Amino acid sequence: MPEINPWGSELVTDYDKLFKEFGLQPITPELLKKIGLDYRGFRRGIIFAHRDFDKFVEATEKGRKTAVMSGIKPSSEFHLGSKMTAEEIIYLQKRFGSTVFYAVADYESYADNGISFEDAHEFAVDNVADLLALGLDEKNAVIYKQSECLNVMRLGHVFSNKVTPNMMTALYGHQKTGLYNAVFIQMADILQPQLKQFGGANFTVVPVGVDQDPHIRLTRDIAGRTKTEFGFIPPAATYHKFFRALNGETKMSKRDPMNVLTLNDSPELVKKKVNRALTGGRDTEKEQREKGGDIKKCVVYELMLYHFYEDDLALEDMKDECLQGKILCGECKLKRIKVIQDYLKKHQEKKKKMQSKARKILEQ
Amino acid sequence: MPEINPWGSELVTDYDKLFKEFGLQPITPELLKKIGLDYRGFRRGIIFAHRDFDKFVEATEKGRKTAVMSGIKPSSEFHLGSKMTAEEIIYLQKRFGSTVFYAVADYESYADNGISFEDAHEFAVDNVADLLALGLDEKNAVIYKQSECLNVMRLGHVFSNKVTPNMMTALYGHQKTGLYNAVFIQMADILQPQLKQFGGANFTVVPVGVDQDPHIRLTRDIAGRTKTEFGFIPPAATYHKFFRALNGETKMSKRDPMNVLTLNDSPELVKKKVNRALTGGRDTEKEQREKGGDIKKCVVYELMLYHFYEDDLALEDMKDECLQGKILCGECKLKRIKVIQDYLKKHQEKKKKMQSKARKILEQ
Repeated sequence: MPEINPWGSELVTDYDKLFKEFGLQPITPELLKKIGLDYRGFRRGIIFAHRDFDKFVEATEKGRKTAVMSGIKPSSEFHLGSKMTAEEIIYLQKRFGSTVFYAVADYESYADNGISFEDAHEFAVDNVADLLALGLDEKNAVIYKQSECLNVMRLGHVFSNKVTPNMMTALYGHQKTGLYNAVFIQMADILQPQLKQFGGANFTVVPVGVDQDPHIRLTRDIAGRTKTEFGFIPPAATYHKFFRALNGETKMSKRDPMNVLTLNDSPELVKKKVNRALTGGRDTEKEQREKGGDIKKCVVYELMLYHFYEDDLALEDMKDECLQGKILCGECKLKRIKVIQDYLKKHQEKKKKMQSKARKILEQ
Repeated sequence: MPEINPWGSELVTDYDKLFKEFGLQPITPELLKKIGLDYRGFRRGIIFAHRDFDKFVEATEKGRKTAVMSGIKPSSEFHLGSKMTAEEIIYLQKRFGSTVFYAVADYESYADNGISFEDAHEFAVDNVADLLALGLDEKNAVIYKQSECLNVMRLGHVFSNKVTPNMMTALYGHQKTGLYNAVFIQMADILQPQLKQFGGANFTVVPVGVDQDPHIRLTRDIAGRTKTEFGFIPPAATYHKFFRALNGETKMSKRDPMNVLTLNDSPELVKKKVNRALTGGRDTEKEQREKGGDIKKCVVYELMLYHFYEDDLALEDMKDECLQGKILCGECKLKRIKVIQDYLKKHQEKKKKMQSKARKILEQ
């Protein structure tokens, strides 16, 4: 089970390799038809691959109980990667009537970042308020903190019996034992929806970034190996492309907060961050007017494509202006900054109204 | 932290080594005076050593909240080792008013013996009925199954962050990851009484067999290292001597059930088992009449000393008869078998009445 490393979002040849070597399945036009085009993640091919998602969709057609599983590590504000998966689970919840299971991974923030469960709680309330503001229907959802969920804590220990330390070292390198437990607990999060108390043998889909595939494969492996014991079905997954940091680096780091946007950013902060973002600008104005920008390099375009332009025509306009040399990067950034600021302003207003509901959900 | 291996119960020189090399503390006459002599485990020196038990006793004198922690692996019937620790916790509960925490270690029976939580439950009900029949006051006790206890499941994961896989391998050898988790969960059982919800910073004592000291030392180490995080005090421990199997072997094995007595044994089974037990009989009747038996070798004497003769005079009589050659092993066994049968008959009658209460405690 070799590691898939994150890579730049435009390196399409690498995506081809994924299909061949790792057995990811492409999203076919037939499948896309069933999924629908209302969500830009599917419509624009940002979610580009899957495992068994066709079976999940079939299960919904047969009226089977289905679940969509995702979560967030409560160690910081809601960033755009979390927004992307949140939007996808909200879409699938609406489209297929699936129950959403959303894990606040406070064991992971404890093990990985040394954040106490108490401190994680406040991040969690803020994160769940974002989730609700994005449109999750909490009446058809199970939102929980790992540290408060007996099912998940117990299954985490159970799954530790299915592997050896050598296997974990081979997959994840030499780590303190607690980080291996974080992996077992994540598997428990993913398989929990299939427990009897939730109706048993749910078809579950997990939307992830493609760099998370090793976790998915291990979970599918463990599900297979605990089939007789628990009746688990290997979970389905969808894969979205990797997002770059604002400086164009492929590895985003929480230690470098100026290179990622969060849903809490003020208008001033958005301006500051986006103004520093990598674009595909040419060396001279003349060259840019003649050749147009190198849009594949441009993180600002990627931001609008992935996250902030819902309207395909607006996106098309942006692309045309760039490629035909009608606009320079500075001017372009001003326009996009405005769109992002407007989006975040509206979001933050909605979110404000969701704070007390989020707290109630997590403290019930 | 080298391993202490079990050894024969009469090898007193090895016990001396424990005090010197491993830092166990002897139970002094002063301490014994405070503990009292009503329980034969203390009176007869079967419980021969401790760590910080003097501090525990002082805490009770100062009116501090204290806890006694023990448990059982629900993988078989109640055997004599479990009876010994059960009697000790019941004695300490009465003597010092301490709250008993009793873990049904069903995670351990899952990880170590592959017993499902459902199957373990029926063993658990039976085991807890034994515990109640032995005299535990369940009104001042917390009796729980590991798999149903969020505190313990969570703390088990938390403690996995305080060690590395290499450390666990050095201490416990190469095992599947799940068995390391069983160790973390056992530490969680021991430290749970100190959680805020139970009043915080309880002085806790754990009665164990001396072969369990590596677990105690690791738990004390982890308690020290999580002091700022949780305020844990290293738990105290008392140590009882090692019991031999009926054939005189120092390693008891559950795969060899004819070599251990359980509290469920029928009169016929007791007779069969004890008749095969190792004694200190001489080669000829003549030799035995002249020299008396080699009582140090005799497992039947050990059974009566440790478990079945409450009355010191009865024990003294047995010893005299043997050492003075007044009795041969066959005749002696008949007498002791009767005592054991009577004890178990009474116990089993009491236990029968406790079955529904035990079930209620575990299913509440």
